Amino acid sequence: MHLSNKLLAEFLGTAMLLATVVGSGIMAENLADGNMAIALLGNTIPTGAILFVIITMFGPISGAHFNPAVTIAFALRKDFNVKEVLPYIVVQIVAGIIGVWAANFMFDLEVLQFSQKIRSSQGQWFSEGVATFGLLIAIFFTLKSKAEAVPAVVGMYITAAYWFTASTSFANPAVTIARQFSNTFAGIAPSSVPAFIVAQVIGMAVALLVLKRFNKLDF
Amino acid sequence: MHLSNKLLAEFLGTAMLLATVVGSGIMAENLADGNMAIALLGNTIPTGAILFVIITMFGPISGAHFNPAVTIAFALRKDFNVKEVLPYIVVQIVAGIIGVWAANFMFDLEVLQFSQKIRSSQGQWFSEGVATFGLLIAIFFTLKSKAEAVPAVVGMYITAAYWFTASTSFANPAVTIARQFSNTFAGIAPSSVPAFIVAQVIGMAVALLVLKRFNKLDF
Amino acid sequence: MHLSNKLLAEFLGTAMLLATVVGSGIMAENLADGNMAIALLGNTIPTGAILFVIITMFGPISGAHFNPAVTIAFALRKDFNVKEVLPYIVVQIVAGIIGVWAANFMFDLEVLQFSQKIRSSQGQWFSEGVATFGLLIAIFFTLKSKAEAVPAVVGMYITAAYWFTASTSFANPAVTIARQFSNTFAGIAPSSVPAFIVAQVIGMAVALLVLKRFNKLDF
Amino acid sequence: MHLSNKLLAEFLGTAMLLATVVGSGIMAENLADGNMAIALLGNTIPTGAILFVIITMFGPISGAHFNPAVTIAFALRKDFNVKEVLPYIVVQIVAGIIGVWAANFMFDLEVLQFSQKIRSSQGQWFSEGVATFGLLIAIFFTLKSKAEAVPAVVGMYITAAYWFTASTSFANPAVTIARQFSNTFAGIAPSSVPAFIVAQVIGMAVALLVLKRFNKLDF
Repeated sequence: MHLSNKLLAEFLGTAMLLATVVGSGIMAENLADGNMAIALLGNTIPTGAILFVIITMFGPISGAHFNPAVTIAFALRKDFNVKEVLPYIVVQIVAGIIGVWAANFMFDLEVLQFSQKIRSSQGQWFSEGVATFGLLIAIFFTLKSKAEAVPAVVGMYITAAYWFTASTSFANPAVTIARQFSNTFAGIAPSSVPAFIVAQVIGMAVALLVLKRFNKLDF
Repeated sequence: MHLSNKLLAEFLGTAMLLATVVGSGIMAENLADGNMAIALLGNTIPTGAILFVIITMFGPISGAHFNPAVTIAFALRKDFNVKEVLPYIVVQIVAGIIGVWAANFMFDLEVLQFSQKIRSSQGQWFSEGVATFGLLIAIFFTLKSKAEAVPAVVGMYITAAYWFTASTSFANPAVTIARQFSNTFAGIAPSSVPAFIVAQVIGMAVALLVLKRFNKLDF
Repeated sequence: MHLSNKLLAEFLGTAMLLATVVGSGIMAENLADGNMAIALLGNTIPTGAILFVIITMFGPISGAHFNPAVTIAFALRKDFNVKEVLPYIVVQIVAGIIGVWAANFMFDLEVLQFSQKIRSSQGQWFSEGVATFGLLIAIFFTLKSKAEAVPAVVGMYITAAYWFTASTSFANPAVTIARQFSNTFAGIAPSSVPAFIVAQVIGMAVALLVLKRFNKLDF
Repeated sequence: MHLSNKLLAEFLGTAMLLATVVGSGIMAENLADGNMAIALLGNTIPTGAILFVIITMFGPISGAHFNPAVTIAFALRKDFNVKEVLPYIVVQIVAGIIGVWAANFMFDLEVLQFSQKIRSSQGQWFSEGVATFGLLIAIFFTLKSKAEAVPAVVGMYITAAYWFTASTSFANPAVTIARQFSNTFAGIAPSSVPAFIVAQVIGMAVALLVLKRFNKLDF
């Protein structure tokens, strides 16, 4: 598969992911009449669903990463060409932002906007570490135990993680960067972004250590 | 498979789809006590579920299109007999209307009614374009990457698209025409129909261009 | 497989089904604070889920009918031993009632009670006909198109039908009889039962006619 | 597979399970504005989802028990090495508690806390017996009828059982012990724990008797 096709697949999938995360957040907040548990249900179900869709669609083309932490983890495990890491990440970030802009435009909002939602607490940082750790071990264990279940596993994992973490589980640096550009339910203030990404990288590193231990014992 | 059987399958599936879209919309609106996020959940979950059902049931018979945009896209990609396009579309439209009438009758409403719900804004038109684009690439990429997942992918895609688009994602000209005949939650005023269909056709065309690029590179 | 084992499987499955339908109805009504769309979600999701479970578990043992309309339809299509029809139906009815009683006992309600909920209108009767028709064609088409998907198809079909019919889709004479014994959300007054069963039988008959047409043409 | 790897898998899975059960309970209660049916939906959907994830991930490593009742049942049926029973159970209990503590920490709550939620009634004890009985027969019948469906069956079963039992279906002694350590929606007062576990053991015993009957007849 030519790199340009892989990048187009990463582009389309990441844009669809962010349009869904932000678009469903806007729709849910608009309709939920202030009951934020209903709004979170209306944000969770579409996000889990679209992850199943885009990973199924694009898996054989690009690997369906849509997430720099996943791309880096594959590369560190020698399952991915190091030269393609940077292009993947650039495309994921750009596509994520365009997905958010598309959501803004669909809902007749200002296309260019910045979130004012501060997400900054020890619990939320710990949450992002846990969420990213869990996502990566879910992906890599499932690739060994039942690879064809990865689309459902990732969709279900994020469905759970939206609720079991205090941060609603971004678990993805490209998603975190893109969600700055939405001053709605799903947004995150630019000042809160760096700490989230640090926490995600730590979660990824711990996941890789755990996975290494299992590899040595030849699982 | 004889054409008349294919058409009967398209008829049954499209009628079940529209009865579900409109019937669950009526039920949800009746019960939701004004909280429209709950109503939309009660409309989304049944719609995603019935799509999985009807595509699984009728896939091997008619291809399970239930959507003129899908039928035309297959024909333009030379995957479908051009002579069957018109009968398919006629049956889809007629069946959609009958499905709506069945829903009206089940809920003891006037069988013949017209929606007064204006759906007309730049954001909604853009939404219909995006929704139809996404539906078509989801179908055609999945047919190549994992054909047996198409019923789940389409069900999940529409589950997401009900929430990530401002129009709640009709993405189907037959559905759009049929939903004129319900003056409830799921309806669309006749005057709003043409622009929706134009947007859907544009979304379909863009999807075909993207798919063509991947085909050339022999995916 | 010995008949007594088949009957035990039908017993366990039907009892689990009714305990879920009625138990989740009680839980949902207790918690929903009067918003009946939320209550119906809390009734729908467990019912769809348990159908997937019991059909997967018991399919290879008894065929996983749990429904006299299904048992009779299989027999009329010569896919089921006529001598086993009556024992199946008796067990389904008894198990259904015991499942309802178990739900009543779990929720500290009077075990023996009768519903006072009148369900009687043209729309509801038509709904039961449509619901049973749809259930039977969903089962029999899926058995031909993709038999291993039957558990998911039935679960998803009922998930949809709880919302797209005005009766919330009983679609099963044993379920209808059993739900008389619960004076809660999911109940049905004894006086409303006969008309429901007649409508279900008509729906079954129409489904068999449609299926016959497809059979002739050698699908 | 070396025992230490199996135990690490049981540890990770059980901790993820309890972090989800308790974390989503906290999130749901925080957001639901007092409507406890919405809160229970927000607790149910993540729990069902994470069960699918962890059983898929860890099934081939440890068997994915995450539940002493399951481990004991496998051992009694001679499908599991008796020497590994005690280490499994110890790890499940410790991991469960750590999962609860992780949830507490993510949501900026006191890490060490004890529930004051009394769960003590005839109906709830009967519920735990029924829930555990149902869980075990679902697992063991599915292992015979369609082993690859176990992750989905367990996730769907618990989704249903959260609603059809008066106790919201703990059905797991390690889960019951761990949930003492959360004074939130999902908690259980220490004084209510022993009777729950007794009921779960009785449910397990009845399930084993039913399964034995089917085994004899060579299903």
